[in-house]
Amino acid sequence: MEQFLEKAKNASRIVATMSGSERNRILREMAKALRSNTARIVEANTIDMRKADEENLVSSLKERLLLDEKRIDAMAVAIEEIAALKDPVGRVIDGWVTEAGLKIEKVSIPIGVIGIIYESRPNVTSDTAALCFKSSNGCVLKGGKEAEASNIIIAEVLQSVLLQNNLPKELIALLPDSTREGVSKLIKMDKYVDLIVPRGGEGLIRYVSQNASVPVVKHDKGLCHTYIDKDADIENAIAIAINAKVQRPGVCNAMETLLVDEAIATEILPILKSAFDHEHTQLKGCAVTQKFIDVAPATPEDYDTEYLANILNIRVVTGVDGAIQHIVEHSSGHSEAIITENITTAERFMDAIDSACVYVNASTRFTDGAAFGFGAEVGISTNKLHARGPMGVEGLTTYKFKIYGKGQIR
Amino acid sequence: MEQFLEKAKNASRIVATMSGSERNRILREMAKALRSNTARIVEANTIDMRKADEENLVSSLKERLLLDEKRIDAMAVAIEEIAALKDPVGRVIDGWVTEAGLKIEKVSIPIGVIGIIYESRPNVTSDTAALCFKSSNGCVLKGGKEAEASNIIIAEVLQSVLLQNNLPKELIALLPDSTREGVSKLIKMDKYVDLIVPRGGEGLIRYVSQNASVPVVKHDKGLCHTYIDKDADIENAIAIAINAKVQRPGVCNAMETLLVDEAIATEILPILKSAFDHEHTQLKGCAVTQKFIDVAPATPEDYDTEYLANILNIRVVTGVDGAIQHIVEHSSGHSEAIITENITTAERFMDAIDSACVYVNASTRFTDGAAFGFGAEVGISTNKLHARGPMGVEGLTTYKFKIYGKGQIR
Repeated sequence: MEQFLEKAKNASRIVATMSGSERNRILREMAKALRSNTARIVEANTIDMRKADEENLVSSLKERLLLDEKRIDAMAVAIEEIAALKDPVGRVIDGWVTEAGLKIEKVSIPIGVIGIIYESRPNVTSDTAALCFKSSNGCVLKGGKEAEASNIIIAEVLQSVLLQNNLPKELIALLPDSTREGVSKLIKMDKYVDLIVPRGGEGLIRYVSQNASVPVVKHDKGLCHTYIDKDADIENAIAIAINAKVQRPGVCNAMETLLVDEAIATEILPILKSAFDHEHTQLKGCAVTQKFIDVAPATPEDYDTEYLANILNIRVVTGVDGAIQHIVEHSSGHSEAIITENITTAERFMDAIDSACVYVNASTRFTDGAAFGFGAEVGISTNKLHARGPMGVEGLTTYKFKIYGKGQIR
Repeated sequence: MEQFLEKAKNASRIVATMSGSERNRILREMAKALRSNTARIVEANTIDMRKADEENLVSSLKERLLLDEKRIDAMAVAIEEIAALKDPVGRVIDGWVTEAGLKIEKVSIPIGVIGIIYESRPNVTSDTAALCFKSSNGCVLKGGKEAEASNIIIAEVLQSVLLQNNLPKELIALLPDSTREGVSKLIKMDKYVDLIVPRGGEGLIRYVSQNASVPVVKHDKGLCHTYIDKDADIENAIAIAINAKVQRPGVCNAMETLLVDEAIATEILPILKSAFDHEHTQLKGCAVTQKFIDVAPATPEDYDTEYLANILNIRVVTGVDGAIQHIVEHSSGHSEAIITENITTAERFMDAIDSACVYVNASTRFTDGAAFGFGAEVGISTNKLHARGPMGVEGLTTYKFKIYGKGQIR
């Protein structure tokens, strides 16, 4: 493992000095190579799909695992879009002249070697490999067991393009030991690996955060809230609440708890109830909510549960400060929204909540790299440092100071 | 410990919503309080100094430990300077409108609770407390045992100002259990502590990095290089090399190894030798260096040693690429310099080296918060992520996205 990671580290030094246009040309070749190898990729995917049948995987997982010509073309298009993004490396982020007359430039540079741990969908393999290559980083990928054959062939196709361009294939590497033990080793290798991005279940993320000596950017759970203030536009409030919960309940930026200002509860709760009933949402409510509408009781644990399903807690709170207090106690720091027409209330909420994304009058479902205009997304970070919220290709860079002198000494 | 840290966390939420002018007013009150409590602080410091005598601490340590009226006034001035800095919180770092018409602002916010572990000099207690308060963070300070009495009284004086302003004293807290066990607990408390900054010996830093579940910004060793290229201005080269080594050999931005282009070795090595002899520098050289000047041999381990003393390795290399190769193998990623008049060579060096600070024609000694113009310094980070190089008060902030909608849903 150590030798393998040393190779990856050395490979990352080579890509670090390549020009953006070279990297983009190679990315476009990778897209082409995926298309021209469609048959081989589909064949390998058949092996994974057969195994999934044998092991009786649930149909939603199988659906995510499947690769066909259309999906492989979409993977190629994604790489072409990444090639078209502005170069994230070499941006001058800041610059000034010091008292001693030194010219300082703060410039974005690649991070080095990035280890990414993810599950099921094999398109993540080509997406993340392309994002890392775009940002001049090497990557070590650890995909899910269920997609093993697909991941291997996708990596092989991308590596063949590297080799054709006289680049080491270790720039896009699959972790050789993909057991839990292999992961344990990887996250301790701070000599060779500069960042670990775990995407997956809570157990995995907790394990990695607790045991890694390599810095970690987590993609942890999203326990998102929407607060409907007494000064809300009712129509907006209903539309946003429904959208935040039901448009795609299984994702991290979906709402889990709806907070309602007590001053508007009588008026809005019955409307909300009938709107959510129409969407077959299973509602749970606090004691006050239950006075106004007929819903199951919400337990204290419910407020800390990421349902990832069409289930919603409703809690009546005392104004914006009551909402803030609930969110501070229960939020995972992902995304929260306030619905209000009152600018003072809105700013009070936006300032007091320190989640990665704080919305006024919009659905939390917009917390997403594409919706933010980042073009492509490494994931949605729940870290407080380095990268927060939707993490685009800039999240795969760090910086250094370039200092230009004329013989200055101290 | 957990209860204590929970209080610190709650306190940090209060300071997070205070205005910059309020925070600055309180900082100026803290400066005043330090001055008016000079007698009490000197008295407490006497206890530490007496203990230092009893335990036969070396005189350089005692010198750092000592507080007198002048030094206490300097601590107050430092706080006033921090109060005068631009507010690091609330800066709009970026902003744009998305395709859906959402207005996004990326805004700097405090990190939360910052744990700082440091040694000897008691002025660090007031400096870091002021930097954390300036940036709306709470702090948990763990100073050195040898400065215990001084640190306690300094913290008490600052806390009394917090209490006078109806703020919880836990905003500026000393770690209640200052043993190694207390530190072990602190670095695992990711529920309450958002960042750990260890400043001190290699052993401490390694222990914290390997065992913390809280994110760490390290202030690790500096193994800095200067490379004299064949196109160097000889006078500049000598002045910079001497300055980088001898002006203050005991600090992390001092040079440990001087690399000399083989094309200029015959000419420059004798001049360097006599200049360094004049400064009583102990020189060690590679085999090639020894052909030109009479110095002790440098062993392979020497190239990995941070001397923190007036000792220097000299190695002859083949051009800029030879220098880059040596630095990649031996650098700690802190600061490196090239001395050359050739712009292409300079840019080749500046691009290939990914240390936090890369210089052309200046001394590595400038890697410093004050020299960079940051006003005050939390330390010099050897992290690759979050904060790199000199870390000013902006390094104590993170960001969130504020998103303004008009009812947008997906």
